Amino acid sequence: MTTPQRLQGIFSPVLTPFNADSSPDADRFVRHCRWLLEQDVGLAVFGTNSEANSLTLGEKRRLLDALLEAGLPAARMMPGTGACALPDTIELTKRAVQAGCGGVLMLPPFYYKGVSDEGLYRAFAGVIDGVADARLRIYLYHIPPVSGVPIPLSLIERLLKAYPGTIAGVKDSSGDWNNTKAMLERFQPQGFDVFAGSENFLLANMRGGGAGCITATGNVNPSAIVQLYRTWRNGDADVQQRKLDEQRAAFAKFPMIAAMKAAIALKTGRQDWLNVRPPLVELDAGQQQALGRALDAVGFEMPNASALA
Amino acid sequence: MTTPQRLQGIFSPVLTPFNADSSPDADRFVRHCRWLLEQDVGLAVFGTNSEANSLTLGEKRRLLDALLEAGLPAARMMPGTGACALPDTIELTKRAVQAGCGGVLMLPPFYYKGVSDEGLYRAFAGVIDGVADARLRIYLYHIPPVSGVPIPLSLIERLLKAYPGTIAGVKDSSGDWNNTKAMLERFQPQGFDVFAGSENFLLANMRGGGAGCITATGNVNPSAIVQLYRTWRNGDADVQQRKLDEQRAAFAKFPMIAAMKAAIALKTGRQDWLNVRPPLVELDAGQQQALGRALDAVGFEMPNASALA
Repeated sequence: MTTPQRLQGIFSPVLTPFNADSSPDADRFVRHCRWLLEQDVGLAVFGTNSEANSLTLGEKRRLLDALLEAGLPAARMMPGTGACALPDTIELTKRAVQAGCGGVLMLPPFYYKGVSDEGLYRAFAGVIDGVADARLRIYLYHIPPVSGVPIPLSLIERLLKAYPGTIAGVKDSSGDWNNTKAMLERFQPQGFDVFAGSENFLLANMRGGGAGCITATGNVNPSAIVQLYRTWRNGDADVQQRKLDEQRAAFAKFPMIAAMKAAIALKTGRQDWLNVRPPLVELDAGQQQALGRALDAVGFEMPNASALA
Repeated sequence: MTTPQRLQGIFSPVLTPFNADSSPDADRFVRHCRWLLEQDVGLAVFGTNSEANSLTLGEKRRLLDALLEAGLPAARMMPGTGACALPDTIELTKRAVQAGCGGVLMLPPFYYKGVSDEGLYRAFAGVIDGVADARLRIYLYHIPPVSGVPIPLSLIERLLKAYPGTIAGVKDSSGDWNNTKAMLERFQPQGFDVFAGSENFLLANMRGGGAGCITATGNVNPSAIVQLYRTWRNGDADVQQRKLDEQRAAFAKFPMIAAMKAAIALKTGRQDWLNVRPPLVELDAGQQQALGRALDAVGFEMPNASALA
């Protein structure tokens, strides 16, 4: 039994490619993951941008198995494992830990809203106790605009005290820099790694002592984002940040997940990259053209996109 | 193959009893369901108040099987089958239809917020096409305060047009009478059965031509609610409604699901009725006492509660 290294750098909630019949396409998934790793982007598979909650537990297990069977390094994986039903969360988390994943990104149970800190504490504690493995590293997934269930600072404090080492960090997708800042100040010095929820806050997060970012657009713009991560102390860091912001904004004019898939379809010529599962909808032809123009306008490129074709 | 009868009357999102180890207690579940049926309350098992989204698909299948094996009538069942992942929704819905359930209560996929009508349409259409069984009767579950994903009137209109007969009705848990009223006026005349989401709107819903209500407190106050349903044309209906409102309000002073379980624990002496799954939390001793006093103050009784002990 080995203790996983602390994760850091740029991670991407890996897009899940679907076939025409809406089944996950494991082959394209593996190739996309390999392409990301080659650009030094870690694999936060089964995140919000992966349409993970639109996948069954069995589908997620099979996709994770496909990555492992393809020889991709589990140490660079941070699969999303949080579900509404704790036994589901425990099952997928166990599998990830046994496979050697560097960590897991964990949503709170997200059906009930306005639940108490005590209830959320019991949920995370129940998973930790249920998995019962010293290798477990949990990154809390704070994304109230989507989950509807925030993870307050008071809860992090309590969890860190009860499960030091196991509670390894957070992805802060609140979009509220003051919240990220508070986490950096209060918890990062305790070895709790704060990942910004998008590259918009990457430079600020690094300057605040954070660990990196986990970002949707890591799927399509990996090298430029990694470049800022590597060189954030350089004089041109603010210029790099503005460029990243501009490129992200071109995607954000459209529904984000569908737009990233459309960008890959555009750059590879593979129309099946457009596919999403309901309740999401793929970009229509007009939107695809508008996206193409918006990406051209900001000088967006995808080096070696042919590997995804 | 027989066509199910249209469901009407009072239904309860049946509480799910848990053992000390947090596993579902099928024995108590069956007895609770039988007790409800004896009081003419139908079984909307796997609803919000059932903590259904805290159960795995396998747990729901086993609980449904337990009811069927106990000989309870599937025609009086309206299990909740809507999940975030469409293949999960299809699997449980298929099982319910094959078992002869009178209908299913279907949440939209509820992780992503702000999704389009088109995306929600595809989600429901995907389930209907995936189940592919003429016996399917879907009751749409509109509960935006919890799910975060409303089912707008425009979507109901489109679904009704595309799948007449299959789209059988709605549970409106918006808490917004104007929305229920609009559904009654626009869709009930087309044979789309509108169920109020709580007994607070039972009388108004019956006067508006609705089909009944599906209500949390049906779990604990079944006979009084059924009495109003049976006699809503009588002169004392408004008095009955006020009494029901008063009794519900006694529960609503506390977290509702935990309070109903605590009431059953109180009336039966079975402490394991208190158990809930995270992220919910059971009432503490002080809350249990306060609940007891609040229930006494409104003359709340549970006839034949010993059947649940």
